[in-house]
Amino acid sequence: MAGTDTSIKIELRPSPAVILCEPQLGENIGTAARAMANFGLWDLRLVRPRDGWPNEKAVAAASRADHVISHVRVFETLEAAIADLELVLATTARSRDLQKEVIGPDIAAQRMAVQIAAGKGVGLLFGREKWGLLNEEVALADTIVTLPVEPAFASLNIAQAVLILAYEWRRQSGQAETLPFGSGLSEVAPRSELVGLFEHLEGVLDQTGFFTTPEKKPSMIHNLRTALTRGSFSSQEIRTLRGVISSIDRRHQRPNPNRQK
Amino acid sequence: MAGTDTSIKIELRPSPAVILCEPQLGENIGTAARAMANFGLWDLRLVRPRDGWPNEKAVAAASRADHVISHVRVFETLEAAIADLELVLATTARSRDLQKEVIGPDIAAQRMAVQIAAGKGVGLLFGREKWGLLNEEVALADTIVTLPVEPAFASLNIAQAVLILAYEWRRQSGQAETLPFGSGLSEVAPRSELVGLFEHLEGVLDQTGFFTTPEKKPSMIHNLRTALTRGSFSSQEIRTLRGVISSIDRRHQRPNPNRQK
Repeated sequence: MAGTDTSIKIELRPSPAVILCEPQLGENIGTAARAMANFGLWDLRLVRPRDGWPNEKAVAAASRADHVISHVRVFETLEAAIADLELVLATTARSRDLQKEVIGPDIAAQRMAVQIAAGKGVGLLFGREKWGLLNEEVALADTIVTLPVEPAFASLNIAQAVLILAYEWRRQSGQAETLPFGSGLSEVAPRSELVGLFEHLEGVLDQTGFFTTPEKKPSMIHNLRTALTRGSFSSQEIRTLRGVISSIDRRHQRPNPNRQK
Repeated sequence: MAGTDTSIKIELRPSPAVILCEPQLGENIGTAARAMANFGLWDLRLVRPRDGWPNEKAVAAASRADHVISHVRVFETLEAAIADLELVLATTARSRDLQKEVIGPDIAAQRMAVQIAAGKGVGLLFGREKWGLLNEEVALADTIVTLPVEPAFASLNIAQAVLILAYEWRRQSGQAETLPFGSGLSEVAPRSELVGLFEHLEGVLDQTGFFTTPEKKPSMIHNLRTALTRGSFSSQEIRTLRGVISSIDRRHQRPNPNRQK
């Protein structure tokens, strides 16, 4: 889905940090950066990336999430990477034999939103591509976050896990209430115009003999009005529909010039 | 994040269909299939896939979402692909000059859940990689769905858009309340055991001369008890902590055999 508005400047608002522990492939760092950018995150921290930093493959995969890439910080230890944070959540897809609470992304995002609104630092830990976080790394976090995946098909790559958590962060922090574009719906016409349409249509139908059984006329009108009300027509649409009725009606009065043969 | 439990059989429960209009790359069909499988979707329909079907690259990229790939159906027209559906939502990242309501993924998923609970067919339309859905395709849908992305960085690939909508479907349909694994937390100890810990600790501190100013003792005890209560200790943890206290306490009574020099 394309749709980026390049005229808008990117703002770096307070938001959770994403900490990748020993990421192996530059491509995954880049796609994680892109997923962060989609939902307004920008603070990406790497603990001992296998191929060092900067990484050309990461930059290419980030496809213009330059503001995330340019803010990347590299740390020698996880302890150093989270030193300034007050709330740390560890993402994992496997149950651990640890005395830690386990929550889903929606609850996690609510807690992150509360902390960030209070000016605290929040971080989300993600593990290695192949085997995730080590237990000693999870132990440094306050809480475990896991995604409500289908247990029989639970494997997500890092960028997808980042995407879901970034989406939930944006939703729970109230920013998701503003969609990037609004409805194209025009205002619904005043009810008098709708009644004008009904009366126009019913008058024409009276003349064409649509109401064959007089005692059924009230219920037929009721059903027609019910159906037509459901459309929430705009003034323009009501004018169009009245034009359609007039046009069909006139065909019975004068020959259609396009149908001469 | 690894974590798939291969011992669990995949169930095909009623869920929204995903309809890809003229997908160009097999890889994107495969990653979309995988994103569906992560959150329990399985009904994938393709309208005129550029490289035909079956497609080896799609199978490879689906990385074992075989139950989705084996159910794929191919259609010549979008009309045929959605013929059996009662609610059709078009995903798009661009504003259209169409008289259609625009909603976010959470509202979309609520509506899908209501329809599916009532036994109706529901479908989500996704457009081509490069330019999305045509306006004439969007016109066939009831409503437009767009993601609450950062307007300055709005570009998502198809698999990521599918992932967010599939995640929201699972969340709003109530299935997300069951996380794939639970908390490892043991039960909190009965309060009597916690009080036993307090009294043990305070008794030892009385003997070591910790409470130097008698008038401050009550508030110091209050603060200690407050801090220790916050840990929600289990019975096992309380036993361990009492062992720790006894061990430190005994060091003052008898020489530590390991510290002889």
